[in-house]
Amino acid sequence: MATPTVSAARTARLVGTLVPGRPAYQALADALRHAVADGRIAVGTRLPSERELTGALDVSRTTVTRAYEVLREAGYLASRRGSGSVATLPAASRRRGTGSLFPADPAEGVIDLTCAASRAPAGVIEAYERAVTRLPEFLCGAGYLTLGVPELREVIADRYAARGVPTEPDEVIVTSGAVAGLGVVLRALLGRGDRVVVENPTYPNTVDSLRRGGARLVPLAMDPDGWDVPEAARTVRAAGAAAAVLIPDFHNPTGALLAEDDRAVLARALRAAGTVPVVDETIAEVCLDHDGPLPRPFAAHDPRTISVGSSSKSHWGGLRTGWVRAPRTALPGLVEARVTTDLGAPVLEQLVLLELMRTSPGLTEERRQDLRASRDALVTTLRRVLPDLGFAVPAGGLSLWCELPDGVDATAVAVAAEDEGLLLAAGPRFSVAGGLDRWIRLPYVLDPATMTTAAERLARAVAVVADGAARPATSRRRPQGRPSRPLVA
Amino acid sequence: MATPTVSAARTARLVGTLVPGRPAYQALADALRHAVADGRIAVGTRLPSERELTGALDVSRTTVTRAYEVLREAGYLASRRGSGSVATLPAASRRRGTGSLFPADPAEGVIDLTCAASRAPAGVIEAYERAVTRLPEFLCGAGYLTLGVPELREVIADRYAARGVPTEPDEVIVTSGAVAGLGVVLRALLGRGDRVVVENPTYPNTVDSLRRGGARLVPLAMDPDGWDVPEAARTVRAAGAAAAVLIPDFHNPTGALLAEDDRAVLARALRAAGTVPVVDETIAEVCLDHDGPLPRPFAAHDPRTISVGSSSKSHWGGLRTGWVRAPRTALPGLVEARVTTDLGAPVLEQLVLLELMRTSPGLTEERRQDLRASRDALVTTLRRVLPDLGFAVPAGGLSLWCELPDGVDATAVAVAAEDEGLLLAAGPRFSVAGGLDRWIRLPYVLDPATMTTAAERLARAVAVVADGAARPATSRRRPQGRPSRPLVA
Repeated sequence: MATPTVSAARTARLVGTLVPGRPAYQALADALRHAVADGRIAVGTRLPSERELTGALDVSRTTVTRAYEVLREAGYLASRRGSGSVATLPAASRRRGTGSLFPADPAEGVIDLTCAASRAPAGVIEAYERAVTRLPEFLCGAGYLTLGVPELREVIADRYAARGVPTEPDEVIVTSGAVAGLGVVLRALLGRGDRVVVENPTYPNTVDSLRRGGARLVPLAMDPDGWDVPEAARTVRAAGAAAAVLIPDFHNPTGALLAEDDRAVLARALRAAGTVPVVDETIAEVCLDHDGPLPRPFAAHDPRTISVGSSSKSHWGGLRTGWVRAPRTALPGLVEARVTTDLGAPVLEQLVLLELMRTSPGLTEERRQDLRASRDALVTTLRRVLPDLGFAVPAGGLSLWCELPDGVDATAVAVAAEDEGLLLAAGPRFSVAGGLDRWIRLPYVLDPATMTTAAERLARAVAVVADGAARPATSRRRPQGRPSRPLVA
Repeated sequence: MATPTVSAARTARLVGTLVPGRPAYQALADALRHAVADGRIAVGTRLPSERELTGALDVSRTTVTRAYEVLREAGYLASRRGSGSVATLPAASRRRGTGSLFPADPAEGVIDLTCAASRAPAGVIEAYERAVTRLPEFLCGAGYLTLGVPELREVIADRYAARGVPTEPDEVIVTSGAVAGLGVVLRALLGRGDRVVVENPTYPNTVDSLRRGGARLVPLAMDPDGWDVPEAARTVRAAGAAAAVLIPDFHNPTGALLAEDDRAVLARALRAAGTVPVVDETIAEVCLDHDGPLPRPFAAHDPRTISVGSSSKSHWGGLRTGWVRAPRTALPGLVEARVTTDLGAPVLEQLVLLELMRTSPGLTEERRQDLRASRDALVTTLRRVLPDLGFAVPAGGLSLWCELPDGVDATAVAVAAEDEGLLLAAGPRFSVAGGLDRWIRLPYVLDPATMTTAAERLARAVAVVADGAARPATSRRRPQGRPSRPLVA
């Protein structure tokens, strides 16, 4: 395969205007480094020659030469015989390219689809750099901002208002991510043995968190493409639960979106049952191609709603910052529950999220296009190599929820897929009540070429299982120190 | 009062060598901005004239002029008639100077001693800046590092080895602060109704966390100056508890340090009782003037020990990053408990802590001297204005644990102190079993002049209570949204 290239003209556009007040070669090197690091110039791409780039930029040849030298020294550029200067990453980052969590990193070439989370989008480093310049304002304090940086609370409140629920900053607290936020809400809201309605399937960490807290789970059955709303309302009324944990916006794992009218119906049932809606909005901003206006947040239908949000999916998981929006009267209880978990989100992370949300409160258009391309590559390949796989193409969210052909067990497929170099989360991991043995979740969070390869590997794994040739799961060795249930996010 | 000044020679030393590769005026402005932001040049100090500084530094007059202009524009320098150029902070940071947590910030001039935590030390911004340059290595991953950045785990392990417990990186996980780490450990270790031994007094958030988890607390009585070890061993043996939460290194709030031999005695009792030691080492590095070598970490005496550490007290609370050190066999269970709280500490914060620990694994000498000066100012003033107050001067930690004169109630003093412009945490907040009504904790975390003022205000509050003139606590209005129990850290 020929080395991919990026034209001098496109490189010049990616570089943009060089930051003044610094040597031009450094500003150029920084701009190129950012573009490589955040993927706007893909690793393995040949950069324009020094001469070409000098022509496209309004700088001297020496500037380009020195910038390329800086990049070579920092490990962002490699000179390959016959290929010119090729974008690369420092050795340390290649090791971490899979984003794996455990000491036993997947071997080279393994595709990890256990997490529905992707690499950082363009602009993240710049947001960190700007945030650091604001840090001095906070260094004279002890650094505990239990409710959150005031400006960030304002920006989050404004985003709710823009989505259709007027919100004041003092109805928002900043948390250390959505999982942390949900944990705080559940601790504040629930006593031991309380009943909690929860969609089935749902996000596995929510179920683990509820079980650890001693809640009694009442599954709310989902169809593969969404809620059976009259049935859901009946379940809610019959349960008389203390709380219901719902993911109405591009539900994880199904990708389904609860329509505006259906929200009203479900909200009425919850009010009638005295059940507080706890709404996980982690994926709410990951709209890819929904027709027409999005439904308003669930809180617009029930003012008692406690909403949990996060920057992990809309911006980057490495930020680990989220929020809770709740009625003002619920806040003191939430803060008391919070300080037994952590004393506040880190100051800098809050400033970074502030920068990112000011630039783009939800998904950037670039990221939306990337995710669409990855989803479409996965869908196209699956239809070709696994025509018997059942799935709906969601208008948002980060994964396909797929039904395997009759008689093919999802856990066996996940095991066989590992042999093919593909890590997957099987249906039972998303189940509240057992079952979902023929379902798998396929996040489309890696680049289109990788998604195509993943689909091909999955097809081979399905064939192996269908042929009855899969080795039993118990024969696997688990790397030392690796938990029995890998993280699914 | 005359405006304090900083000489040109000292300023030149603070600036150090200008970072090459950038315009000199920018490098100079950055160095001065850092010095003001982190307090090496105190706010309100007159900087040397441009002419003087030009003479002291090997730069042109234009460089100094432009650097001062940059600082003026950024809000770090104010020109005052007759006072020259005076160090200041941007408006936003002055508002946050108290480091307060709640929407109702303490009014101007109020001294907040509810948290035993201080401002960021010198060098923190630089650590953030260096960490951002390493971030690109991680941007191509999903950002979930549930165990922690590998290099940071190594540095933490090395620090344990240096303190006397050989430790491998895979015995360490990075957490979102010590409170989060302790929460993870307790969830992994304890079932509902399990007995837990806990020192009395102790860190209030630990007690809250244990109570929320449904533990049955067995208080281990402390003397004002430390442990009655034979009595403690008896308590441990009689309790037969699942775990014991201990703070043997500069105990919070008493500041006491458990001697090496006493650790061995207590460890034997814990082993005999089948009780797992959970050791809070948050303050272990805050040694101010202990004679001789420090006792080894508790894990050196019992390999079952699970240790919880943090950068909050040794470095800065705004970082919100800590760790758990545990036997390798305990790690999978800890990781499973962890992912129901958060999916990992933020990547950048981990890189910042890595930078800070490489520079200074524990307290920097500068910070140690600052804390000593603050402690000594508090002690000196208390002896003068409140000769009846009982306290031992601890060799480390961040606070004095003080016994009020007979008949003077600590909660009443805290209420009266608020009228004097001093916020305090009274003894009952640190109590496991009720009582401690005559004790208050006085953290010496602010500058010496402020500590002196705080002691004077306390003396007035004590006089008011002793005279029986204090208004009842119930007459206080609590600002809206402020939790009933303020955060104590």
